[in-house]
Amino acid sequence: MLKVAVVGATGYTGVELIRLLLRHPEVKITTLSSRQYADQNIAHIFPSLAGHIDTVCAELDLDALAKNADVVFTAVPHKTAMDVVPELLKRGVRVIDLSADFRLQDVDVYQQWYQAHSCPELIQDAVYGLPELYREQIKGAKLVANPGCYPTSIAVALAPLLRRNLVVADTLILDSKSGATGAGRSAKTASLFCEVNEGFKAYAVASHRHTPEIEQVLSEVGQKEIKVNFTPHLLPLNRGILSTCYATIAEDVTSSQIAAAFQDSYANEPFIRVCPEGQLPNTAYIQGSNFVDLGWVVDTRTGRVIVISAIDNLVKGAAGQAIQNMNIMCAFAETAGLDVVPLFP
Amino acid sequence: MLKVAVVGATGYTGVELIRLLLRHPEVKITTLSSRQYADQNIAHIFPSLAGHIDTVCAELDLDALAKNADVVFTAVPHKTAMDVVPELLKRGVRVIDLSADFRLQDVDVYQQWYQAHSCPELIQDAVYGLPELYREQIKGAKLVANPGCYPTSIAVALAPLLRRNLVVADTLILDSKSGATGAGRSAKTASLFCEVNEGFKAYAVASHRHTPEIEQVLSEVGQKEIKVNFTPHLLPLNRGILSTCYATIAEDVTSSQIAAAFQDSYANEPFIRVCPEGQLPNTAYIQGSNFVDLGWVVDTRTGRVIVISAIDNLVKGAAGQAIQNMNIMCAFAETAGLDVVPLFP
Amino acid sequence: MLKVAVVGATGYTGVELIRLLLRHPEVKITTLSSRQYADQNIAHIFPSLAGHIDTVCAELDLDALAKNADVVFTAVPHKTAMDVVPELLKRGVRVIDLSADFRLQDVDVYQQWYQAHSCPELIQDAVYGLPELYREQIKGAKLVANPGCYPTSIAVALAPLLRRNLVVADTLILDSKSGATGAGRSAKTASLFCEVNEGFKAYAVASHRHTPEIEQVLSEVGQKEIKVNFTPHLLPLNRGILSTCYATIAEDVTSSQIAAAFQDSYANEPFIRVCPEGQLPNTAYIQGSNFVDLGWVVDTRTGRVIVISAIDNLVKGAAGQAIQNMNIMCAFAETAGLDVVPLFP
Amino acid sequence: MLKVAVVGATGYTGVELIRLLLRHPEVKITTLSSRQYADQNIAHIFPSLAGHIDTVCAELDLDALAKNADVVFTAVPHKTAMDVVPELLKRGVRVIDLSADFRLQDVDVYQQWYQAHSCPELIQDAVYGLPELYREQIKGAKLVANPGCYPTSIAVALAPLLRRNLVVADTLILDSKSGATGAGRSAKTASLFCEVNEGFKAYAVASHRHTPEIEQVLSEVGQKEIKVNFTPHLLPLNRGILSTCYATIAEDVTSSQIAAAFQDSYANEPFIRVCPEGQLPNTAYIQGSNFVDLGWVVDTRTGRVIVISAIDNLVKGAAGQAIQNMNIMCAFAETAGLDVVPLFP
Repeated sequence: MLKVAVVGATGYTGVELIRLLLRHPEVKITTLSSRQYADQNIAHIFPSLAGHIDTVCAELDLDALAKNADVVFTAVPHKTAMDVVPELLKRGVRVIDLSADFRLQDVDVYQQWYQAHSCPELIQDAVYGLPELYREQIKGAKLVANPGCYPTSIAVALAPLLRRNLVVADTLILDSKSGATGAGRSAKTASLFCEVNEGFKAYAVASHRHTPEIEQVLSEVGQKEIKVNFTPHLLPLNRGILSTCYATIAEDVTSSQIAAAFQDSYANEPFIRVCPEGQLPNTAYIQGSNFVDLGWVVDTRTGRVIVISAIDNLVKGAAGQAIQNMNIMCAFAETAGLDVVPLFP
Repeated sequence: MLKVAVVGATGYTGVELIRLLLRHPEVKITTLSSRQYADQNIAHIFPSLAGHIDTVCAELDLDALAKNADVVFTAVPHKTAMDVVPELLKRGVRVIDLSADFRLQDVDVYQQWYQAHSCPELIQDAVYGLPELYREQIKGAKLVANPGCYPTSIAVALAPLLRRNLVVADTLILDSKSGATGAGRSAKTASLFCEVNEGFKAYAVASHRHTPEIEQVLSEVGQKEIKVNFTPHLLPLNRGILSTCYATIAEDVTSSQIAAAFQDSYANEPFIRVCPEGQLPNTAYIQGSNFVDLGWVVDTRTGRVIVISAIDNLVKGAAGQAIQNMNIMCAFAETAGLDVVPLFP
Repeated sequence: MLKVAVVGATGYTGVELIRLLLRHPEVKITTLSSRQYADQNIAHIFPSLAGHIDTVCAELDLDALAKNADVVFTAVPHKTAMDVVPELLKRGVRVIDLSADFRLQDVDVYQQWYQAHSCPELIQDAVYGLPELYREQIKGAKLVANPGCYPTSIAVALAPLLRRNLVVADTLILDSKSGATGAGRSAKTASLFCEVNEGFKAYAVASHRHTPEIEQVLSEVGQKEIKVNFTPHLLPLNRGILSTCYATIAEDVTSSQIAAAFQDSYANEPFIRVCPEGQLPNTAYIQGSNFVDLGWVVDTRTGRVIVISAIDNLVKGAAGQAIQNMNIMCAFAETAGLDVVPLFP
Repeated sequence: MLKVAVVGATGYTGVELIRLLLRHPEVKITTLSSRQYADQNIAHIFPSLAGHIDTVCAELDLDALAKNADVVFTAVPHKTAMDVVPELLKRGVRVIDLSADFRLQDVDVYQQWYQAHSCPELIQDAVYGLPELYREQIKGAKLVANPGCYPTSIAVALAPLLRRNLVVADTLILDSKSGATGAGRSAKTASLFCEVNEGFKAYAVASHRHTPEIEQVLSEVGQKEIKVNFTPHLLPLNRGILSTCYATIAEDVTSSQIAAAFQDSYANEPFIRVCPEGQLPNTAYIQGSNFVDLGWVVDTRTGRVIVISAIDNLVKGAAGQAIQNMNIMCAFAETAGLDVVPLFP
């Protein structure tokens, strides 16, 4: 059994990692660390876990962690991650980092959207952990930068079209909507039930930090510099991201070329479900699973294609994709521990 | 007191008309008609109304209606409306029609998106009831075609920019999200609580019937033919539409021109609230009111402006706007009966 | 115009007081105080209020307050209230206190369930502001202790039966469910959207501080010492309390005596709606209004009556009842500013 | 592999059976029947299932069913079940019936609360499938009557106390609250999103058909005739039942006897989690799992105990318990296919 640890176990991503790892046939959770809840039983913090685990959370102890874990998931905020990750790598463990700290390959871009980076030299070693695009590189990685939730939903939706030059690159408009777990578990007025329930809003318009990450992955796939409009919104529900992606179709491209692009790209992907004709994704149908549901409509009136993707932001958008990366790094079956049927309703 | 009647009183638009009319200082509800609930007390159907009204719903009787009402609100589905409205007009009452039947000035467009039209000659007499754009025409109208909820949210958001040619007309992408009252009160599986709750989806992508209505009003304001991408989505909440509207900014247009366009257009509009700098609309802040909340962000990286509007789809998107139209038609204070402070939370 | 002030304007009760007072024909809001949001425009804190008010919140200044207000609503936590209220009374203003500090007439009981009381001498002067039971006393009051939300929902439900000895006093079981606004607006993990949404729980079982208040009012009405089981629960919705009250029917009491008790007690009460036969209350039907909806079922199999009441916890359970008390104190029409049709859906 | 079929596959219980059976290591789904959706792919009806199953639903064909299945789950309404079940038994398959038709051992009681029973002779052969109480009898059963959701939540909560005579049997008051999946998937106005959302109500007060089932199981456990007050309520959430059960404590019974009753009864039960001291159940913590979470409070002021249980109504209240029964009937590990970590949030 592979020994794994979760640093930052008591956020929503942490508890989701635990939920999924507990059913993984090849791993054993050895350590859970949490600053805020040190010395508390994880099953008291999250009673959903009772009966499955009763590990007591520990303060972060790098040496103990390295001794007890082969792979560590770091589910801490950006900036914290860049302090912890290099120390873990130094001690010989492999790391899957769920923060933003090692996702952007250009440290200047990172520093412009986030803050100063304390270990820029590590960035080159990090592999961007989106298996549908970078599976080969992930296999040998020591450090995986697990993608952001929004970038995952968008990259999977647009990569087939960009790679084949089926759409005009500077026309991309990405309108995304996320459930409230995406805002994290810290106690802020804006995240209170009564502030979110029965409301809907856009936020961080034209300034969200996932923008450069989206542009990086789309530019790489499209092999040209791409700038996008990305607008995140907050949904009054727990889990799910739906991204509605608009692009002008390149000249002379047909609907069947677009359909073929999706079919060819994803026919063998275990976690990508292309909706049958006449259906479109709904976040209700992917809850708790690692699936990306994809659909699209070609609008011949305007010459645009609208691609829509749905993911569970805590699974394919965070914990599930992290485990998928671990599976690839460790040569487990890629679906091990992730072969979940979504909960509906 | 003006005598008013509601035809189709037992849908969500009907009950909202009743709620607002009951607090209107100048009117008296004389008749409520409903096929499905004929002979039932409206306060038994909607216990929210108990203590304020106990009118028994009647089958539609055109003569009785015309005798007892000066103004009739028709809140019936399209196609039904085109049968009822001409009969009412013939009998000398003024009509505010909340269906789509008299909104599209080009009957061919209507017939292409809806079905055959049985009284195309009436279309020319109908005034499109968006007061912020057509106040003068509404004053003398005998028949007002009350705008659709989505078109209202979008026209108010974009008219100031289109009228001044501040944006490129063929770049409009309109991503709208509506609460579930927008789907109506008929008993369909897709509208069940458990099918909508904790889910989010797009629907009628590139094919929603509000598209030609949006294009008509934007084309008229922009004085050129405009085609748009309009994508509606279903939110798991009762009330509210948020529209996120994308447009490429015309050459040499500055942020302050954009700001001035909104300020100048709406400074004296009683129901339009332009968000202060740094704030954006949230559907939670307009519930139960006739307000349109507006905000925008200029993205200098991409040269686009993102305009966001929030309305209560049952009020400014239906019943409230209908009453605003009645107020204008009858020379009441435009805010009479609509001077509501939104319910929050 | 009566000049009124709100101390503690930025909690959910505060914003609801403002919403209702803004539409009150006889009053003018002169001052809003808030420690946390001092010097901020109330319409920026609560954008729902924009267009109706743009008062800047002030630090609490007792002298200024007393000078500018005839009546002050104190919507601050218990313990804070007992510091503020005596100072206001000394300065000659009338106070409607929405905290628990002056509700319990026995200071020992208060000190047992809350904490030490710093001005016990004032308790005797306070009138318990439940108009349906204590209207006469409220008329001349200088200090009204506005009832708790749960006690309001329960006292109105049971008073008609207890006063007539129709139920056995020591059999009362009160199972109440409240929307999340009842938990207040402070930023706590337990109140986050994702902790409350899609969940339901009981809390403070057999230990909730409203218990002695419920017992006090029921004992007074029933003219004997009454102890109850009161169990509050948290609902995943914004507004509303539904209380399900169980009592064993006294010997030889008939169903029609029970029906008569409710009809006789409440026939002339403007805010109490007794459901017609075959209907029971639903919190969805009282939103935003000061109504109490009441229904009951006599279970002849078990000899018990189940009385069910629904209120909006922010209106009849807090702000609305406070204004009702003000109306009585100031000899305004009792429904002034409260003649609201509930928002549905 | 055991061959299983689901009759009535397209209700919420049906899709939940499929979800769980798909992950069961010992079974294979061979047939799904549905009148309404015959000839449609189950993964088109419920896109959540896509990628896991693509069985086409069939009209009910008893011979085909009996040929292709060893065990059949009948998830059809009562009355329909009593037509189907005998035919299946005749053909030699074992049946787990999720309707009410074979739960009540006294056919007169059944006929009083439901309607005429067409095969009363079968009732004696049916085993009431609540494993925590009747595990031994289930082992050899040909027909299991799977318990109702409310009775499950209540029987597990009270059996330890009734069996030991720790509470007074005629004082039981059972206040239950259920998520909206409990109302089923048929298209009724009362089940629409906007009718349920932001509302809360009691229904079928003193007349719900689960009442005699609750009384039957409690009477059997308590070895005396027991009558109860049972009040169901509708929660605005998808999944979960929370039952708040009140009972007067028998004379001289101590808190530690009560605690011991729960600990002794359930220490070895795989699906019952007794909350640690200071915690109480929340439906948010059992979603998607077969757990029953239990907590209680002794109120020494009133001499009552309040026992609270939480289950997922679709799992332990329906599909999960049915599979637990199948596991027992087939000598599989009792937790096979049910070893799920609840989804939170």
